[in-house]
Amino acid sequence: MDPLAELLAELPDGVVLTDPDGMEKYRRDWSHDAAAGHPLAVVRPENAEQVQVAVRWAARHRLPVVPRGAGSGLSGGATAVEGGIVVSMERMRAIEIDVACRVAVAGSGAFNAEVKAAAAEHGLWYPPDPSSYEICSIGGNIATNAGGLCCVKYGVTTDYVLGMDVVLADGTLVQLGGPRVKDVAGLSLLKLFVGSEGTLGIVTRVLLRLVPAQGARSTLVATFSGVPAAAEAVVSVGRTLRPSMLELMDQASVNAVEDYRPMGLDRAAGALLVAQSDAPGAARGEEVDVIETACRAAGATGVFVTDDADEGEMFVEARRAAFPAIEARGALLLEDVGAPVPVLPDLLAAVAAIAEEHGVEIPTVAHAGDGNTHPIIVYDPADPDSERRARAAFDAILAAAVRLGGTITGEHGVGRTKKAALPDQLGPDVMELNRRIKAALDPDGILNPGAIF
Amino acid sequence: MDPLAELLAELPDGVVLTDPDGMEKYRRDWSHDAAAGHPLAVVRPENAEQVQVAVRWAARHRLPVVPRGAGSGLSGGATAVEGGIVVSMERMRAIEIDVACRVAVAGSGAFNAEVKAAAAEHGLWYPPDPSSYEICSIGGNIATNAGGLCCVKYGVTTDYVLGMDVVLADGTLVQLGGPRVKDVAGLSLLKLFVGSEGTLGIVTRVLLRLVPAQGARSTLVATFSGVPAAAEAVVSVGRTLRPSMLELMDQASVNAVEDYRPMGLDRAAGALLVAQSDAPGAARGEEVDVIETACRAAGATGVFVTDDADEGEMFVEARRAAFPAIEARGALLLEDVGAPVPVLPDLLAAVAAIAEEHGVEIPTVAHAGDGNTHPIIVYDPADPDSERRARAAFDAILAAAVRLGGTITGEHGVGRTKKAALPDQLGPDVMELNRRIKAALDPDGILNPGAIF
Repeated sequence: MDPLAELLAELPDGVVLTDPDGMEKYRRDWSHDAAAGHPLAVVRPENAEQVQVAVRWAARHRLPVVPRGAGSGLSGGATAVEGGIVVSMERMRAIEIDVACRVAVAGSGAFNAEVKAAAAEHGLWYPPDPSSYEICSIGGNIATNAGGLCCVKYGVTTDYVLGMDVVLADGTLVQLGGPRVKDVAGLSLLKLFVGSEGTLGIVTRVLLRLVPAQGARSTLVATFSGVPAAAEAVVSVGRTLRPSMLELMDQASVNAVEDYRPMGLDRAAGALLVAQSDAPGAARGEEVDVIETACRAAGATGVFVTDDADEGEMFVEARRAAFPAIEARGALLLEDVGAPVPVLPDLLAAVAAIAEEHGVEIPTVAHAGDGNTHPIIVYDPADPDSERRARAAFDAILAAAVRLGGTITGEHGVGRTKKAALPDQLGPDVMELNRRIKAALDPDGILNPGAIF
Repeated sequence: MDPLAELLAELPDGVVLTDPDGMEKYRRDWSHDAAAGHPLAVVRPENAEQVQVAVRWAARHRLPVVPRGAGSGLSGGATAVEGGIVVSMERMRAIEIDVACRVAVAGSGAFNAEVKAAAAEHGLWYPPDPSSYEICSIGGNIATNAGGLCCVKYGVTTDYVLGMDVVLADGTLVQLGGPRVKDVAGLSLLKLFVGSEGTLGIVTRVLLRLVPAQGARSTLVATFSGVPAAAEAVVSVGRTLRPSMLELMDQASVNAVEDYRPMGLDRAAGALLVAQSDAPGAARGEEVDVIETACRAAGATGVFVTDDADEGEMFVEARRAAFPAIEARGALLLEDVGAPVPVLPDLLAAVAAIAEEHGVEIPTVAHAGDGNTHPIIVYDPADPDSERRARAAFDAILAAAVRLGGTITGEHGVGRTKKAALPDQLGPDVMELNRRIKAALDPDGILNPGAIF
């Protein structure tokens, strides 16, 4: 029997897609990887056993398996590989909330927003909040160890993963961790799988730690003459407190958002900071005062504070809209470089210099409070020279981040778009360590080949 | 040249100890492992290069290497292996505070309390606080992913490790991570090394995330007629808030502490909870009120609240003194079992039943807020039957934790004392995963052989 017929025979009707038109949307994530291959089939399992069947089949035939969450990844981690299969977790999205344990048990295909909503019904909160939280899956969040806006105070995905079920490269299903806050029995395998971008196994189910619902928030918006002053304010705030949000937008991104969806942002501002405090009671006002003082000392041209939740959320939405707003203007290459917080001004200055040098527009937003920036390189896909300059700028920004002691990716993952730069950051010995772990867990290299490694 | 002469020739005078009397204190940690071997030599390196020399030498001769921090481990993770070397990190304890990055850079031999003190000089705080914080090393904390009292709100060691230098099994020195809050470039190797108990490499230097100094605390002490009522109060508190401390002591441990160092605790209480809130401003009083209400609803016989820092610290010290206080009374076997928080009452009931069944005394303290308990099995080392019953109770408690969906170790590590029970918790497939990682990083098995595996 040919391999595809075998796969179709082993799984129920409707689980395996083979129609090229139907498979088209499973070939790429949001990185729009031009090198995406044509998969032999797309598997949409309904349970872990079906994932096992697909992976065992792939192992037998030594065929590539690309795990896929919601396809909102930004580094090409879910780009389809020619002649392999895509395993889409879209049907495995059941969510149960264990109120007594304060744990969410979710299929890895569940959206981040769905987990948040299910938790909220019980007065609980799942903090990690990528800007794409309404359209990204928990499995994808785990694959990239996703961050977000509240992470400056509340940490990233790995800080909330208590357990997971994983299908390994040979089809074995293992359960790691459990609904226990503290557990050091054996090596920290759970943490190893977080951020492994589908190269070590396919996560089918996760146990996520929940915390009490977030309290009321106050929002501060400060305008600056330019990015350097705003970045200095961020460094200053970080010295004394942990706001629950500290985001930066430059003038180009503010204007892109206003063009896309007018929100009344100050188009004349050289840069904007959006900060929040969720400290309880009077402490909230005190934190906002500290942030305001830091902004004014750094030269803020205006400071606006609101305790109104809807008004505050409007500014946060503006920040989240930056990526779709800029994407609406043409093709783009999205960066995710980070640096130690005190180096943030240098990193942003380097991005500005690279934009100038390569003659490209690079609107920039940043999870500034933790030094994680998203320069967004805009280009004209119809103009080969524009694209060439954009790609040169992309590489130059990665190199600048490494040179400044930073990282090529703070929360989006290496995927396929950044893997060429990974050895520059990690060096040969750490790359070799990565390869040894990969070889130990996936000796035939069938899991997401081409991602990270 | 014989191996020992070679080692002595390769390292400066004074670094290598070979005198049996001088080496005696390096043979065991606080688990007092009777099976401890006699090392060939104890190496006390002054820098990472000397660690590399020692490990390369051991790799060449395929001799066991046992890394050692301060020797305060409780699971035999630092028990010396016959004919191997012990690498004691006691001389590598320099600490620098990078205030702008809010990072402590510490030699792995630095004590936890020394890191805390260095951070405090700059208004910063390193939260993880094992009860042994005054005498345990940061390297040991990383080896076991140590917890402590404030972890119920502030998390454990792994949540604070941003970077580390590690000497691998072949003597290669690698740097993992850096002073960056978010970094997902490559596999999460940093997190894999945390909790690996010296079986994957020797950590020589660590970068620890610091947070702003903890605010003022209020302390609540509640007495109960027995452990079950106190455990119910803990479950109830956990449903609504995250106190900054939530500790439990049973009557036997209260009395042991009072015998050892009188502190005015209520000897008649069947159980005691010590809770703290560090919420800012008026929110602190509100949290304490919630805790008090939960305690009274669970049947507290008395509740005492103080905002006085020294008075509060006295109760915390009493809790920390439980282990030395009970140890002063004879030999003991220390447990570290944990369970999902709602199962805490069942786990504590199981411990009481096991004490009864085996005719042994098992005073118990617990980091109750995160379901992590320390039953302390007391026995008479001069009485073989007493010791036999104690060991049977030890195994029975591990089995009960696994049966209840818990863990055999929440924060002390598997070491050598609990490795027989590890497969019961993890199962064969996860054990095999552990072994594969170990083999990939230490193919000759020279690093801490006999620990975990």
